[in-house]
Amino acid sequence: MRYSTLFPKTLRDSPSEANNISTKLLYQAGFIRESTAGRYYFLPLGLRVHHKIIQLMREEMNRTGAQEMVTPILHPLELWQETNRTNSAGFELMQVKDRRSAKFALGGTAEEMFVDLVRRNPVSYRDMPFNLYQFSPKFRDEMRARGGLLRVREFTMKDAYSFDRTEEDFKVEYLKMWNTYKKIFDRLGLPTVVVESDNGYIGGEYCHEFVVESEVGESRFLMTPDGSYAAHEDVAKFTHEMVNPDDKVEDFKIIDQPKWVQTMEHNEKHYKLPAKRFLKNVVYKTTDGRIIIGTIRGDLEVNPTKLAHAVNAVGGLEPATDEDLAKLGTKSGYVHCWGHKGCTYVGDLSLKTVRNFIGGQKEDLTDSFNVNYGRDFTCEVEADIAMAQPGMLAPNGKDCLVEKRGIEVGNIFQLGYHYSKLMDANFVDEDGTRKLFYMGCYGIGVGRTLATIVEKFNDDKGLIWPREVAPFQVHLVVLPGDPAVKEAANALYKTLLEQDIEVLYDDRDGVSAGVKFADADLIGLPWRFLIGKKTVASESVEIKARTAKETELVKLTDLSAWCAKNI
Amino acid sequence: MRYSTLFPKTLRDSPSEANNISTKLLYQAGFIRESTAGRYYFLPLGLRVHHKIIQLMREEMNRTGAQEMVTPILHPLELWQETNRTNSAGFELMQVKDRRSAKFALGGTAEEMFVDLVRRNPVSYRDMPFNLYQFSPKFRDEMRARGGLLRVREFTMKDAYSFDRTEEDFKVEYLKMWNTYKKIFDRLGLPTVVVESDNGYIGGEYCHEFVVESEVGESRFLMTPDGSYAAHEDVAKFTHEMVNPDDKVEDFKIIDQPKWVQTMEHNEKHYKLPAKRFLKNVVYKTTDGRIIIGTIRGDLEVNPTKLAHAVNAVGGLEPATDEDLAKLGTKSGYVHCWGHKGCTYVGDLSLKTVRNFIGGQKEDLTDSFNVNYGRDFTCEVEADIAMAQPGMLAPNGKDCLVEKRGIEVGNIFQLGYHYSKLMDANFVDEDGTRKLFYMGCYGIGVGRTLATIVEKFNDDKGLIWPREVAPFQVHLVVLPGDPAVKEAANALYKTLLEQDIEVLYDDRDGVSAGVKFADADLIGLPWRFLIGKKTVASESVEIKARTAKETELVKLTDLSAWCAKNI
Repeated sequence: MRYSTLFPKTLRDSPSEANNISTKLLYQAGFIRESTAGRYYFLPLGLRVHHKIIQLMREEMNRTGAQEMVTPILHPLELWQETNRTNSAGFELMQVKDRRSAKFALGGTAEEMFVDLVRRNPVSYRDMPFNLYQFSPKFRDEMRARGGLLRVREFTMKDAYSFDRTEEDFKVEYLKMWNTYKKIFDRLGLPTVVVESDNGYIGGEYCHEFVVESEVGESRFLMTPDGSYAAHEDVAKFTHEMVNPDDKVEDFKIIDQPKWVQTMEHNEKHYKLPAKRFLKNVVYKTTDGRIIIGTIRGDLEVNPTKLAHAVNAVGGLEPATDEDLAKLGTKSGYVHCWGHKGCTYVGDLSLKTVRNFIGGQKEDLTDSFNVNYGRDFTCEVEADIAMAQPGMLAPNGKDCLVEKRGIEVGNIFQLGYHYSKLMDANFVDEDGTRKLFYMGCYGIGVGRTLATIVEKFNDDKGLIWPREVAPFQVHLVVLPGDPAVKEAANALYKTLLEQDIEVLYDDRDGVSAGVKFADADLIGLPWRFLIGKKTVASESVEIKARTAKETELVKLTDLSAWCAKNI
Repeated sequence: MRYSTLFPKTLRDSPSEANNISTKLLYQAGFIRESTAGRYYFLPLGLRVHHKIIQLMREEMNRTGAQEMVTPILHPLELWQETNRTNSAGFELMQVKDRRSAKFALGGTAEEMFVDLVRRNPVSYRDMPFNLYQFSPKFRDEMRARGGLLRVREFTMKDAYSFDRTEEDFKVEYLKMWNTYKKIFDRLGLPTVVVESDNGYIGGEYCHEFVVESEVGESRFLMTPDGSYAAHEDVAKFTHEMVNPDDKVEDFKIIDQPKWVQTMEHNEKHYKLPAKRFLKNVVYKTTDGRIIIGTIRGDLEVNPTKLAHAVNAVGGLEPATDEDLAKLGTKSGYVHCWGHKGCTYVGDLSLKTVRNFIGGQKEDLTDSFNVNYGRDFTCEVEADIAMAQPGMLAPNGKDCLVEKRGIEVGNIFQLGYHYSKLMDANFVDEDGTRKLFYMGCYGIGVGRTLATIVEKFNDDKGLIWPREVAPFQVHLVVLPGDPAVKEAANALYKTLLEQDIEVLYDDRDGVSAGVKFADADLIGLPWRFLIGKKTVASESVEIKARTAKETELVKLTDLSAWCAKNI
């Protein structure tokens, strides 16, 4: 590609709204442009990288036996209605009507489309397992789009859907995808942490995000320093240590308490005891109106995601209002650990770590003392509903959890029978009976992966493309002013193309060497080849790696061998 | 790819709505499925062909220096409003609103998106010319979708947009694209006729369709038997022969005429003269209410497209109503060739081919006789407004025009200053002034091209893929029943993959040789490799070309050389 006619040229400035390094550099170097917020053009240089990332993912997916195909972009809305996802997909769904008033969804994911396809074709156990995937545009009607390619409204996603006979078979596929994702990101030069995460209404233990640590990422998670455990704060577990195992269990009693003692801080001040010696209640409401009281040790916070799973609240939880509390016959700060009617008590595992709690049945001028879980009260549901925090003991009981931030580049999770059941998608098993497919789902955002590579590989001069995804391998620069030099560069360009080497050739006349060098650094191809008077005289080319300071003179007669070795 | 787990398997039947051979075969062989009418899944086999067609087009486009990029799928509707295309794109535009009520078009083409991108980036004459293209989904809200992939509502289009400094530069690019399209279709094995066609409201002489002759195509055109001239009937020209050049010009007179002489047939019967000796008028109305009278020789039909261009009727024409005629003071069958007020007369070139016309100023019991154009009347506008017909003399004055039918697989046309003017897209020219881009546009439908290949290459057993686009090159069949045979086939499969040969391996157990052969023929890969007891015994493989009747035994030791030569 000749740089002289490449559209567009590099720019001195990036748009003021570019709030991270990837957006800034991709914009300046001419890889992307925004159309409207969150919708991007991939320009010639950017699209080449996009294609290379796709091709790399395709190679690795195909190696596993997964089969690439593609669905229409407009999904019949009836399919989304079948699975009740028109309002609960976890993202805002865009809808469109055609001239015959047929309704369609602009797909954000494609479970329904794949399941509908599969159920309309006869499948026997002999045809299984199979994993179907596509690279296709996805739409998310995000309220705010920011961070350039990191959070957009329209993007290319590789989404894969596996169809298995049993949960056991699914586990094999899940592990295969896990390893494939690891390999994909390894090849892209992205070190990933595999983070346990919440599988929403589908639940189950198989749900992981592939996260690249980065300050600009929106994913927060907790992990052990050695990475052996990593989980989103939504689902992170920790080891519960006993608080006062040596204390003797004392008799329950109601004690007087001054009226000013209202909050946990007041408790600590008044009793001169740490928060973990007190009981705490937090009240939530499910979307279908159930009142849930989470009872927990005073130093811990309730994790609404864990609490929702504990009570099977498919639509999630929201904090109870003063009205809700009034219905229970109480008010904020006076919720009891037992005794309220018309609600479900969920007790955290931490209730079993303390002897002789204070609190639990507080009135205006009294509170309860020496409260022991199991003796003085029990909760209908017992579960881990506590929010893990940095510094807590990891599930391995040895390390402390540390907090990390990163960019989620991929995720894998089980769908189980969720979709196959709702859509009645089945196969004929060996015994002749019809059985539902056990499914899994595996996604990677291509544009976000591209931006993450840029976040990781850049310096103050510009982009630094890893070889596997560089738009071109060689940036050929010709020094201006001398026709013989230009002729030599033209000849070299031709030679390199004949050797199938990808070259961006800065053939511009009347542009200074300094500008050309700066552009080459900004665009960030792995190798810069320079042709000038000196190299012509010595029948050589001056080569510099993007990441190196030194240059190297290579004889033209040796260049083919050099390329074979290095490119 | 192992056929055992390929999704889906071949089917015995095709859907009843499949009304052409391509839909039928692509469906049965497992290449495509319909989601809703006009929206197709490309299944694993189908997508491989789709990709190969794209890659071939990409290679040829890149060879010309054109630059691939991609726009967002949702186009801001304001851009389509800027060019007045929300209601006049020539296809029904789908529109969608996001949660913030921002409006978008689902692009049917992308002129606005490219022009908007280009105008927002500084361009100098030094950066030109350039041609930007993309492969991207396009949406057409067709009232009826039929013909499988031949006419759909959603498809991948390669659309290219060229930006030139002048019309002269554009002509160079146009010719380059013409030749590139020829080469693309040649490589795909598709013989194309390049057919002049109508450029609608943009006009101009540069507008051609690439058409593959086929009975299932929707494009009708006229051409000379040698193909040196081909044009859509909308724009087809022909040679006007003089009808009676030797007749003496006679004096004009009004003659009596029986009341029953009303139509052209009556004329012929009463005067015993052919239709071409009579005058005929056809009345149309423009969308902005102008009345247009087309005056033409009695044996010819008015071509509304030509007539519309003659009077610059951007929105096209519709037949005048009885009311319109009443306003002119006349009625159907009594329109005069001259004298009506409040209308525009357009005279066809054929008016000059006849001496002593009959008709032109007809009353209830009289008509005019010996009417001569130029002496007795003239029209405000003179133009070729006649519909060419099969059998007419071609523009070369030698051959007769024949009528053809075909599938339009690509089109190229000038946009001129149309979009750059409406959207104020300009560059800085050598003299420092800002000038509008002179543009061209070049489209190919990928799915329709795929279906056209199938229409051309098939037999009663199934598909016959040309090598360049075959989903795999080799269909490896193992005969069932013998573990040693299966092992040999497995080994061969591995060997072929290591040699980067694309293989579809029918590894199914318990499926008869007959079924496997039938499936291989239906799927239509170029080569069938067979492994059975006999070939294992002779350490060879039996090879059959899809199009051949004979098979060939090739020693395994010679296979690598055979593949290098043939695949």
